[in-house]
Amino acid sequence: VKDQNLELISSLSNQFVAEELAELLESTPPKERSVLWSAIAAEIQGEILTHLNEEVRANLLGELETHEIVEITEELAVDDIVDIAQSLEQKEQIEFVESLGEENREAVQMVLAFEENTAGGLMSTDFISVRADITLGVVLRYLRQLGDLPPSTTALLVRDRDDHYVGSLQLRYLLTHDEDSEVHEFVDQAVPAINVYTSAKEVAHLFEKQDLIFAPVVDDQNRILGRITIDDVVDIIRDEAEHERMASAGLDEDEDIFSPPSRSAKRRTFWLGINLLTAIFASIVIGLFDASIEKVVALAVLMPIIASMGGIAGTQTATIVIRALATGKLGKSNSRSLLIKESTVGLYNGLIWAVLTGAAVMLWFQDWQLSAIFATAMLVNLLAAAFAGAMIPLILQRMRIDPALASGLMLTTVTDSLGFFVFLGLATIVLL
Amino acid sequence: VKDQNLELISSLSNQFVAEELAELLESTPPKERSVLWSAIAAEIQGEILTHLNEEVRANLLGELETHEIVEITEELAVDDIVDIAQSLEQKEQIEFVESLGEENREAVQMVLAFEENTAGGLMSTDFISVRADITLGVVLRYLRQLGDLPPSTTALLVRDRDDHYVGSLQLRYLLTHDEDSEVHEFVDQAVPAINVYTSAKEVAHLFEKQDLIFAPVVDDQNRILGRITIDDVVDIIRDEAEHERMASAGLDEDEDIFSPPSRSAKRRTFWLGINLLTAIFASIVIGLFDASIEKVVALAVLMPIIASMGGIAGTQTATIVIRALATGKLGKSNSRSLLIKESTVGLYNGLIWAVLTGAAVMLWFQDWQLSAIFATAMLVNLLAAAFAGAMIPLILQRMRIDPALASGLMLTTVTDSLGFFVFLGLATIVLL
Repeated sequence: VKDQNLELISSLSNQFVAEELAELLESTPPKERSVLWSAIAAEIQGEILTHLNEEVRANLLGELETHEIVEITEELAVDDIVDIAQSLEQKEQIEFVESLGEENREAVQMVLAFEENTAGGLMSTDFISVRADITLGVVLRYLRQLGDLPPSTTALLVRDRDDHYVGSLQLRYLLTHDEDSEVHEFVDQAVPAINVYTSAKEVAHLFEKQDLIFAPVVDDQNRILGRITIDDVVDIIRDEAEHERMASAGLDEDEDIFSPPSRSAKRRTFWLGINLLTAIFASIVIGLFDASIEKVVALAVLMPIIASMGGIAGTQTATIVIRALATGKLGKSNSRSLLIKESTVGLYNGLIWAVLTGAAVMLWFQDWQLSAIFATAMLVNLLAAAFAGAMIPLILQRMRIDPALASGLMLTTVTDSLGFFVFLGLATIVLL
Repeated sequence: VKDQNLELISSLSNQFVAEELAELLESTPPKERSVLWSAIAAEIQGEILTHLNEEVRANLLGELETHEIVEITEELAVDDIVDIAQSLEQKEQIEFVESLGEENREAVQMVLAFEENTAGGLMSTDFISVRADITLGVVLRYLRQLGDLPPSTTALLVRDRDDHYVGSLQLRYLLTHDEDSEVHEFVDQAVPAINVYTSAKEVAHLFEKQDLIFAPVVDDQNRILGRITIDDVVDIIRDEAEHERMASAGLDEDEDIFSPPSRSAKRRTFWLGINLLTAIFASIVIGLFDASIEKVVALAVLMPIIASMGGIAGTQTATIVIRALATGKLGKSNSRSLLIKESTVGLYNGLIWAVLTGAAVMLWFQDWQLSAIFATAMLVNLLAAAFAGAMIPLILQRMRIDPALASGLMLTTVTDSLGFFVFLGLATIVLL
């Protein structure tokens, strides 16, 4: 980003939607990012902040004064202001909320009181609700009086005399039915109320399951507190799927791709450290058989193949199991069936590859004993890999450890160590 | 599933939403699945089919006669009927479409004419459009005449005299504004028209970027052909993210978790075969140095550690790069910055782990030369892993090969072979 371009950017920025500018900022290395940010008109900085990932947002907010943050967020919806507040350090968050205009302050404080990853922390408080026992005509007059509806309002929430949620009223009924009809005749009970303490993950699951585009959030007494709309849920769905992908490599899905290298290195070093322990364990297994390797050096040449094939086969099974667990498709009732199915796949693959690789070893080393040992170890390791690939995520899930995070390394430990042990062990017995 | 339970299931099935039953079916092994399926009331079988994954749906459809499929899909929206038709073999698809009732046949044929993964293949044709130059009062009378609006209608599409799309009219404006105002005064141009040939991936990106809940689909002359709603897009977003995760293990995201083991084994065997080639390549590298290993067997004990650490470090970088490519955050302009950043992370991690593991080798084998060689190989391999982890997905993307699918194996080939080569090569020069 050159200086002479800044004016151009500033004038162009009005033509981009905020999300595009947010992507541009995320795609820009830190130095250029600050320059670009300051060239963006203050009126859309607020909306851009809502689209940025956690780390990038926190960094940009860190460079702003509290009063500046208040100014650029003034026009945002309550749930967006809350998102931004949640990215601030606690001290700054308090200061920020206290500086908010009167109309937003109370609503923001209420939503902030709930955990970030719950329905309460996600909801927006700008909903419109009507009583079930009034006529459509009264509703229409009420709406005309309001003059405008909150953005992405597709239905009104309907409550009873005691403010309990009873269902929703699609706007389209107001257009196509008689004004004298009463609201309760058209109440749609298909949209379920979501308890304010429901986890974000469950909220997303519910939206997907029922193809919802909005849902009311209620307290324990079924009184309406706010609403959640599909655009917030789309972000959760994407984050969920990304989490698995990133966690399997020990990464955090909220990471800025242009984090300072020292910070990235520090985060990843932990994961490399854990991996080192598992690799050392495999080395110790090899060390048990150093006398055999000294006599038959072909063992050292061939052993990584067994470990590698086991690793791949196990990862395939584990990936399927982790995915099925995350989407709720795997539970107590069917995990045994899946274990049997995956072990059978492991047996098939073990047999295929034992025969093929055994033949290849025979051709390479002209030694039928070595070939038989290799084939046996391959069979055992592919079978064990499938079994471990299914069992490890299931056990971790039961222990309430995130299977996406820990399965990979534990599985590699099993496939490497067992592969080396069976191959070198058999060789020691047979060849020496 | 016991026989005596079938009646219970059948009566319970009315209380579940279709998506829950779809999940239950996906979670059930094949034999029980057929039994469960036949216990479900025909009225909701159609809707359940729309929620099933590709393979499970195709299998269940295979067991039905064409006229049965027509009966259970009768009440579905056009885009859902199309989804189901797309799961049929070509011959059956033609027969099915010809057996459809008159009102659906033409619409289904039109949508089927477009590729499955394009806006045209995704769209629904049950939209309502109004001319821009009429009054809100006329629109209201028109809607009352229709009596009901298509499900999830939140806005009407607005066209000019020549049927070109000009924008959308949110239902809420009809409620809150004067009947004498004209439609064009309230036209919302924020909702972009999507060309019928746009890829599903781009459609999803557009919805996410602009927080859309629907969008019109138009032909090359900007005439409205249909609409896409957010519930279809949520499925695409989830599939996209899943694809990456599954592809990295050589799996297909449409796979039924309870596929017959022989079919699963056949699919996975291809991937294991490719991996075998890369593993053999690494073995050949080791074979070059068999004389060295024979003399210093500690080399065989330690070499897997170097390969393993390189594999993990490279995977971390590759995961970030693949994600950034998929979300469009990485392009020509910033790929050099990212390459430099990731290489710097590799250098930091290389230095940290060279020192730590070098010290550990010193303690274990009491050999400073071996320790120095190990540390150097670790540094080189971690640095190379970061570089390769960033370069490989970028090159694959430029070659139009799916980086999610091929990066992992190519990366392992580099980190294994190079790790073995540097470590054993250095050892051969220094120790022998």
